Amino acid sequence: MSHPLFEAHKPTLDAALSALHTRGYWSPYAENPSPRSYGEDAAEAGKRAFESHLGRDFVLDQPGQAGWAATERSPYGVALDVRYPVCAPDALIGAAEAAMPGWRKLGAEGRVGICLEILQRLNRRSFEIAHAVMMTTGQGWMMAFQAGGAHAQDRGLEAVATAWDEMSRIPAEAVWEKPQGKNPPLRLRKHFEIVGRGVALVIGCGTFPTWNTYPGLFAALATGNPVIVKPHENAILPAAISVAIAREVLAEQGLDPNLVTLAVVDDPAATRHLATHPAVKSIDFTGSTAFGNWLADNARQAQVYAELAGVNNVVIESTDNYKGMLKNLAFTLSLYAGQMCTTTQAIIVPAGGIDTDQGRKSFDEVAADLGAAVARFLSDESVATAVLGAIQSPATLARIEEAHGFGQMVLASKALTHAEFPRAQVRTPVIVACDAADEAAYMEERFGPISFVVRAADADAALALSERIVRERGALTVGLYSTRDAVVEAMTEATLRAGVALSLNLAGGVFVNQSAAFSDYHGVGMNPAANASYADAAFVANRFRVVQRRYHID
Amino acid sequence: MSHPLFEAHKPTLDAALSALHTRGYWSPYAENPSPRSYGEDAAEAGKRAFESHLGRDFVLDQPGQAGWAATERSPYGVALDVRYPVCAPDALIGAAEAAMPGWRKLGAEGRVGICLEILQRLNRRSFEIAHAVMMTTGQGWMMAFQAGGAHAQDRGLEAVATAWDEMSRIPAEAVWEKPQGKNPPLRLRKHFEIVGRGVALVIGCGTFPTWNTYPGLFAALATGNPVIVKPHENAILPAAISVAIAREVLAEQGLDPNLVTLAVVDDPAATRHLATHPAVKSIDFTGSTAFGNWLADNARQAQVYAELAGVNNVVIESTDNYKGMLKNLAFTLSLYAGQMCTTTQAIIVPAGGIDTDQGRKSFDEVAADLGAAVARFLSDESVATAVLGAIQSPATLARIEEAHGFGQMVLASKALTHAEFPRAQVRTPVIVACDAADEAAYMEERFGPISFVVRAADADAALALSERIVRERGALTVGLYSTRDAVVEAMTEATLRAGVALSLNLAGGVFVNQSAAFSDYHGVGMNPAANASYADAAFVANRFRVVQRRYHID
Repeated sequence: MSHPLFEAHKPTLDAALSALHTRGYWSPYAENPSPRSYGEDAAEAGKRAFESHLGRDFVLDQPGQAGWAATERSPYGVALDVRYPVCAPDALIGAAEAAMPGWRKLGAEGRVGICLEILQRLNRRSFEIAHAVMMTTGQGWMMAFQAGGAHAQDRGLEAVATAWDEMSRIPAEAVWEKPQGKNPPLRLRKHFEIVGRGVALVIGCGTFPTWNTYPGLFAALATGNPVIVKPHENAILPAAISVAIAREVLAEQGLDPNLVTLAVVDDPAATRHLATHPAVKSIDFTGSTAFGNWLADNARQAQVYAELAGVNNVVIESTDNYKGMLKNLAFTLSLYAGQMCTTTQAIIVPAGGIDTDQGRKSFDEVAADLGAAVARFLSDESVATAVLGAIQSPATLARIEEAHGFGQMVLASKALTHAEFPRAQVRTPVIVACDAADEAAYMEERFGPISFVVRAADADAALALSERIVRERGALTVGLYSTRDAVVEAMTEATLRAGVALSLNLAGGVFVNQSAAFSDYHGVGMNPAANASYADAAFVANRFRVVQRRYHID
Repeated sequence: MSHPLFEAHKPTLDAALSALHTRGYWSPYAENPSPRSYGEDAAEAGKRAFESHLGRDFVLDQPGQAGWAATERSPYGVALDVRYPVCAPDALIGAAEAAMPGWRKLGAEGRVGICLEILQRLNRRSFEIAHAVMMTTGQGWMMAFQAGGAHAQDRGLEAVATAWDEMSRIPAEAVWEKPQGKNPPLRLRKHFEIVGRGVALVIGCGTFPTWNTYPGLFAALATGNPVIVKPHENAILPAAISVAIAREVLAEQGLDPNLVTLAVVDDPAATRHLATHPAVKSIDFTGSTAFGNWLADNARQAQVYAELAGVNNVVIESTDNYKGMLKNLAFTLSLYAGQMCTTTQAIIVPAGGIDTDQGRKSFDEVAADLGAAVARFLSDESVATAVLGAIQSPATLARIEEAHGFGQMVLASKALTHAEFPRAQVRTPVIVACDAADEAAYMEERFGPISFVVRAADADAALALSERIVRERGALTVGLYSTRDAVVEAMTEATLRAGVALSLNLAGGVFVNQSAAFSDYHGVGMNPAANASYADAAFVANRFRVVQRRYHID
């Protein structure tokens, strides 16, 4: 007797598993906000739904509510004033624990079916969520719709499918029959039950409140764990809508909605209290290395899956498509004003310059041409504001200012005016050239539209520097431009040693900062930038255990 | 182009995977030391091979050798005097790191093929290894052959098959083709490479030097990691033979034998140095909770898979087979003189007694009848010494003495003389009755042939006590005897909450202390007795990562 929602969504699940095992392109969720995919009224209805939250209480009917908090400040300068319930952490944990046995008893099929239903509902509300993502993070509209909607849903589905892939290979029961020579065999019946490890805490970030939250949320939930979502104080609405949808589906199914709750805290100590609570057995965290290390040191009762700071880098050794390379890099540096965990920060170029299809280019020419490519790409202000979005945090604005002093200026950052949102903080990238020895400049993460063209002694030194950056500072992405097999091979070996994903000679419509669900392993989990990957077996397998019982049968 | 050893052993691998997914009885390794399975000369040749090690240098040709050490003392009182190479920890780690890239490049099929070949060679040398296990641990011969040979090999194979199950679902490469409407699709080729996390350290125990070592050894090796085996100082020979066999196969295959090395240390600080070395990324440990906690606190750079102390327990609420129950428990308490991590320590009985097929039995009658059943089972001294084996450590001898003061004596321990080994330290079990309130007596692990019949207020209190013991002190096994569905259900729920494997009403030829590979999840990994289980997905999936590279294709 399979669960009706499991049956209903099984074709999607089967296709997701097939995609995971072949790792070609696949997505069930349309990334374009087109009426053909989402319906004629979807865009308008979604915008209205978003606006209906503004200036209101976001009612979730959670236990232990002690008050309301409104902490979001839109990078676009518009008023949000959504008030969220502030609930006592212990009440959320107690309610989560109480909800857990029923969720376990539902079994893997039921849990997966319900997760897939939640994802489908999230997809239907993509416009509403996209507006919430855009207005809280500063992402441009198209990016908010894609990364905040379909691509985030893809990552959630990927986690569910990966969890199912592990859980489905565990039989519910078995007959164990051991021959005893001439005597009758020993016969046991055994039951195997999948049991979640305990309360899961998912701590979101301010820039990708759905994309970086759904993997942990759905991996934990599918494997039998209640989930407390603790969003970034400035990007609550996308998480709140997502949690509300999950609670709605759970309640419809007669399950305890407190399996998924939202933790909005008005005191930072509450987050630390949640994270170190003995009942919390897993923490998914995206954010600063400082807090990630604090979690690793203090939340020892939990398995921590962390995505932290890094210094993504690209080595340019040679290219047969100079123009394509520059355009490709210009897009990467510009998209969401470099506020992606995958944006390139250090672009390492041999001091002696590089061979290209346009002849030899000196180090200074490469740097200048890259700056010019960025300036050209952003020369149309309407394109520029759509691509750049707004700067998410005042700290990033300060880093942009500071970056101008870190070396030889290649391209200065400019403030642009957004036609639709005059109070939006829009900034173009700053690019600085420096020597490899200037490690203080480029060797720590400077989150935002800040990058460095780093002068290495030669190609070997460039590769060695890239590897050392990955090992010491971490990286989610590295790139290489080279026409030489030996260089490609050496860089490949370096990335295998250091543990980082490599993009080679990207000069078209794919960018080093993009990671596609079902195909790209985001994060790897081998260097300081992340200790886990979306979504491999290790991301899900440790979130549950198998508890068995056995007895004799005739 | 598959690896020849992968092809050669593929039928075994396929059968192992099938067994894992159905969890019925299966083993490719004969557990009986019969000539039909192992050949006419195997027994004699194995004994000679074992004896050839005694009083000699065990040459392994490892790097950094600084001397020799002979630390083993046989519980059977026979001279061993095998001298093992003592190698500098940093030399072993350096050699392991140097060997790793070649092992990675071989690929999952090659690694799995070689692991399966090593296991086959281990099986062929089961007699030699069984003698080594028996003489270093004090196990009886049949147990040493079974648990030290075939069953340990089963657990190794289980780990390899589980690793393969995870690795085989990752394609080596993919073409990712994303439609672009009317434009040509974006096309990337992607390569996915499985990369081990780093040097694995496997720390063995003094009682099961192969059974508790092979899972970590083979899980780490198959997933791409070099392995340093650090055996217990009193049970080196079984590990040394196993390591030598692994090195022999690796060398034959043209691979670096330093992928598997033996770390015999003459200074305890060397173990701590190994465990906290930055290159060591995983530690498999079986042993004391004190050192397990030290590893968790100090070896933070590594994933620690630990099997620690616990207080296994059985609740007797009622039975329809009183005699069978008592015989079954008597065997469990006697086997290897209770020196198994799965032996029952606390037998919890309601103060008001129990219903049985032989009428009502008072608490005192149950305790006395259990003592009598043990005494009867061990009344034939040749049976007794074969089952009990010898006491592995002087600390266990001391604990037996001490136990006599912990309550009302049910059965005193006796020293027996072993006909073949007159200097063997053979002891029968001690059983003490006490109240549930006497927690100081039974609520900590007292490793050895020491058990307690614990008087609980009633059945509910007995179940609650069992659950609390599991939660607070840990347990690898619990049992229940009950004829009442409601009690079975309540105990089942308690074990699902606390996370421990349950055996129900065992009264025949299966015992609560036995755990069968491919079927039983040994350890669960949810309570203080173990943080991992042999061998589920979580036991292997975190030992490797996937590193990818991608580039445009036409």
